Amino acid sequence: MNEAKPYNYRYMAYVHGYHQREQARLQDQASTLVELLHADTVYPEGSRVLEAGCGVGAQTVTLAGRSPGATIISVDISERSIVEASEKIRKAGYSNVWFRQADIFQLPFDPESFDHIFVCFVLEHLASPVEALRSLGTFLKPGGTITVIEGDHGSACFYPESEAAQKVIHCQVELQKRAGGNANIGRELYPLLRASGFGHTKVTPRMVYVDAGIPELVEGFIKNTFTAMIEGVRQPALDAGLSDAVTFDEGVRALYRTMEKDGVFCYTFFKAVAVKG
Amino acid sequence: MNEAKPYNYRYMAYVHGYHQREQARLQDQASTLVELLHADTVYPEGSRVLEAGCGVGAQTVTLAGRSPGATIISVDISERSIVEASEKIRKAGYSNVWFRQADIFQLPFDPESFDHIFVCFVLEHLASPVEALRSLGTFLKPGGTITVIEGDHGSACFYPESEAAQKVIHCQVELQKRAGGNANIGRELYPLLRASGFGHTKVTPRMVYVDAGIPELVEGFIKNTFTAMIEGVRQPALDAGLSDAVTFDEGVRALYRTMEKDGVFCYTFFKAVAVKG
Repeated sequence: MNEAKPYNYRYMAYVHGYHQREQARLQDQASTLVELLHADTVYPEGSRVLEAGCGVGAQTVTLAGRSPGATIISVDISERSIVEASEKIRKAGYSNVWFRQADIFQLPFDPESFDHIFVCFVLEHLASPVEALRSLGTFLKPGGTITVIEGDHGSACFYPESEAAQKVIHCQVELQKRAGGNANIGRELYPLLRASGFGHTKVTPRMVYVDAGIPELVEGFIKNTFTAMIEGVRQPALDAGLSDAVTFDEGVRALYRTMEKDGVFCYTFFKAVAVKG
Repeated sequence: MNEAKPYNYRYMAYVHGYHQREQARLQDQASTLVELLHADTVYPEGSRVLEAGCGVGAQTVTLAGRSPGATIISVDISERSIVEASEKIRKAGYSNVWFRQADIFQLPFDPESFDHIFVCFVLEHLASPVEALRSLGTFLKPGGTITVIEGDHGSACFYPESEAAQKVIHCQVELQKRAGGNANIGRELYPLLRASGFGHTKVTPRMVYVDAGIPELVEGFIKNTFTAMIEGVRQPALDAGLSDAVTFDEGVRALYRTMEKDGVFCYTFFKAVAVKG
């Protein structure tokens, strides 16, 4: 129960923190993006799937629901997150998920014991993503697949354009970098997976495109997902001297400005499916 | 035959120029991107379609081939481009296209005389895109659609990341801006169309994602389309004092660097279909 500390030299301090608003944000994000990110992830009857880094179970519910015949083993380093994820799965009425607290780098499983592996929004927090992927690969049966999903803050593109908004996004990117992570990791999935020894690798970008004609995404993505995340690092950014309060708040206002009726916001997630060669 | 001069105060000087290499570039770009951009553009039998700003016919061939039962009237301000476009259509064996030299702002057609309008890579060159769209709208029958496709250089996102590459892209953006255009116009299609009086408007982003697993796009898009375009403004950028030769060439090398086996390149086109309300 020591979630506030870095767990391991290979992990960054989880930059988003663990408080309630953050958990609400993760839920909003999950429900808005489910179709875009997960519609094509369905595991066959009888397959054994490892979800590495399940967090509070935002994706686990989707995995379990879309692949009712698969057995999903979800692990996370945080015991507290595991408890919450279990509760979520119990409430959703799924019985095909097993949870276990474990370190991705020291998984308590047999080699080549999984048909598929699923990793979502995890690599961005690791100082050594290639090492993590290599390690995960050892638990995959030959011919099995690993699915990796990551965002990329450098892909954020909006109207009206705003240097203030870019600066405040950069605060988040820089904080994540200083903590050993990489907020722009989405674009790197292909080289990372290839460098980790995986064979055929297919990456598909998934852009969230939002304009005033899609009000549910204006609220659900621009406000509750992206801008909420940026606002969440206000104090750490000020503490780190990356911005002053006036500049930071100006950037946040510029992000909110994109929610108006002539505004547009784009953000790209990258999804990779790679085969163990 | 005065293509080197600005045609009209509302047009920018065509920043890409009209020489042979440029035309080859436009062809490469067209063939690589046809599926991504045009697969869902099919006009019904008997419909009358205006292609506004057909250039050398790169898109006209696709339009004609995909909608064999439609009559396509393609106009461009440049007589020389019209001649070349006609030749291209003749060689391709299509007989459903009529060409006419005309200014988008003074079209020689009756109001409400078209079922659909198609505009591709044109607005980026206009100083007053809303005025152009409003004018085009008058030629559309009520309930007819306008399809608009534009790129957005601000969406370019690549690995390895490179400030030098961003700078050289910025040269192109700045030159286009100084000439009255907007190289980042793709993201603005929704607000532009709404401000021009169109009704229901649906924008779909079309990202070109390239990694070493897709060698035809490494060559066809990173090299022959995007980087060739940037290299094409080297002299104008140096002349305008936007860069020095060493810095410019470093940026171009950084773009070529993304073609290596661990490189990734992303660029987003935006396609809008709006209905005349």
